[in-house]
Amino acid sequence: MSNRYIVIMAGGRGERFWPLSRLRRPKHLLPIVGDQPMISQTLARIGELVPLDHTLVVTNCEQRQAVLEILPQLPPENIVGEPMARDTAAAVGLSAVLVGRLDPQAAFAILPSDHVIQDEAGFRRCLAAGFEAAEKEPDALVTIGIRPDYPATGYGYIQRGSVAREVGGWPVYQVTRFVEKPDRDTASGYLRSGRFLWNAGMFISRVAAVKKALSTHAPKVWRPLQSIQDALQQGEDLEPLLSRHYPAIEKISIDYAVMEKAASVLVLESGFDWDDVGEWPAVARHFPHDEADNVIQGKGLVRSGRANIVVGDGSHLTVLLGVDDLIVVQTRDATLVCHRSQAQQIKDVVKELAALPEGEAFI
Amino acid sequence: MSNRYIVIMAGGRGERFWPLSRLRRPKHLLPIVGDQPMISQTLARIGELVPLDHTLVVTNCEQRQAVLEILPQLPPENIVGEPMARDTAAAVGLSAVLVGRLDPQAAFAILPSDHVIQDEAGFRRCLAAGFEAAEKEPDALVTIGIRPDYPATGYGYIQRGSVAREVGGWPVYQVTRFVEKPDRDTASGYLRSGRFLWNAGMFISRVAAVKKALSTHAPKVWRPLQSIQDALQQGEDLEPLLSRHYPAIEKISIDYAVMEKAASVLVLESGFDWDDVGEWPAVARHFPHDEADNVIQGKGLVRSGRANIVVGDGSHLTVLLGVDDLIVVQTRDATLVCHRSQAQQIKDVVKELAALPEGEAFI
Repeated sequence: MSNRYIVIMAGGRGERFWPLSRLRRPKHLLPIVGDQPMISQTLARIGELVPLDHTLVVTNCEQRQAVLEILPQLPPENIVGEPMARDTAAAVGLSAVLVGRLDPQAAFAILPSDHVIQDEAGFRRCLAAGFEAAEKEPDALVTIGIRPDYPATGYGYIQRGSVAREVGGWPVYQVTRFVEKPDRDTASGYLRSGRFLWNAGMFISRVAAVKKALSTHAPKVWRPLQSIQDALQQGEDLEPLLSRHYPAIEKISIDYAVMEKAASVLVLESGFDWDDVGEWPAVARHFPHDEADNVIQGKGLVRSGRANIVVGDGSHLTVLLGVDDLIVVQTRDATLVCHRSQAQQIKDVVKELAALPEGEAFI
Repeated sequence: MSNRYIVIMAGGRGERFWPLSRLRRPKHLLPIVGDQPMISQTLARIGELVPLDHTLVVTNCEQRQAVLEILPQLPPENIVGEPMARDTAAAVGLSAVLVGRLDPQAAFAILPSDHVIQDEAGFRRCLAAGFEAAEKEPDALVTIGIRPDYPATGYGYIQRGSVAREVGGWPVYQVTRFVEKPDRDTASGYLRSGRFLWNAGMFISRVAAVKKALSTHAPKVWRPLQSIQDALQQGEDLEPLLSRHYPAIEKISIDYAVMEKAASVLVLESGFDWDDVGEWPAVARHFPHDEADNVIQGKGLVRSGRANIVVGDGSHLTVLLGVDDLIVVQTRDATLVCHRSQAQQIKDVVKELAALPEGEAFI
């Protein structure tokens, strides 16, 4: 157990839940579902699977202070801020460097910081099996695949192949391929086949396996990270090294950079509930609905309208009249009124705001 | 000229423009179109038609202080607050009592406080002709009818009959009948006929004629007002008299109570522009539209949406995404999101709020 580590990825920019989420207060720092910030729930969910000093958070500089305050139980040096967004391959590679410095023989799990999982015991059993698989297959990247219970079009899928081995009673499958978010018909086919799992963005691997996979398949990601690793070994400080080398890192996701190319990628099929709550309609699924299918958080009133999502702000009153299928989010300084079908486009509006001289104050 | 008076009716409850308008800050106290509160524009529009000390305002107690502050040029005793809403017949009758106390021979005009009229000179010429007609026909109630320029379904109409007389080159018609807001086909017929005019809620009459018409056709309105009048002549103070006698007054509009029944009702056909801006879509007509027909007041952004009306509040940012035909009104403590077709139902929501324990703070 002592050489198991967990790295929580907390790099979100707070775009899809604007205006409730902001650059400095993204989804994982908000109690978007539940009473605690999502990242606190993520840490609590780990339980005693690994000790606290074996738990790291990779976030960005803007959010590091907020993470420190929200997770005072973690050693401050375990909370690392990237100086700029370089997508998930960089963050995973940095995690391998940081964990490897603590224990070169370690296996570590990468966990997103902002997902909803109610079945905590099921989650921990699965993660423990994942560690065991990664330890027994030292070159493998072991992903977690969630058994789908509806034909979701908002998730990527992992197609499983034959059984590679068993650990603790769990079959561990070879991964045949990763697939992008499918259309409805394709998703229905996936569900029927029983061989496609949701890609939950979680995986477990030995430090050495991650470094090797990156250096082989994503040298433009790995080389600057190796420079950081070498300089750390010379006793240099982390923060200036990150500032110096991060700009050179290629911006690419871990799935594109490594998972779809690496020789040994395995998947553990899991049955725990899982929701990445990637947009407002997903959040709304976790809240009570009125008889007209409206969800109201905060002080709100809907008249002659159905399937609306109202997210209020303290004592502010939001009234909807004669409207359907809207997302209305009210904050102190900004309000969003968005059709449900456009929830994925909210991030484009935030990018547009970021480019406006007056808009920057609102992101 | 010296026995001409004007009474501005400012009794609105601020329901149709909620949440921008409130019980204590209704439409006529807001610059809903233009830079000044609507009532200030109304007073300015009168110009030198009557002196300031011949100009009265009938409002309600809740708003009296605000009117005093907005119209400091009026003698404070000319601004009278009704202790409760008793509809327009009561307010007109009270006006007759108050003007009659100043000059029993006076003629006075009743003007709404919150309409938009750009052609101020045309308006004043018409009103002057109305006074002349009322002075020459001492028993008549002389209404102002606006020549329609589109088949409006949101206004009541006045059907004109034969010419009763001419004043200053204006034909003054007998009124055949008053009609309620018509449907679209009926309104088109009215427009084609050339004999139907919009009822602008303005009329001019001698004090004696109004009192006589009320005592004949609306004794339940007039009797309590007569008690007030008698007690005023005994030197009693106005305010306690209003509190004592207002509850007994029948609640009925001047059109129902008198106009549709009185023997001599005349109408002056007017060509000045006129808009009662009775709901948000009417207000929006007076503001610039973007290429997708959106109207944005304040700090707002509409993406992938058309024909929306956004009314912001200072520095607050309101973003609309993928929505059409919405009215979005943002204020410090309340937000409304309403379909354009439901603009007339806003007042029902306000009534509903008024009945809620928590809702009262927002009306």
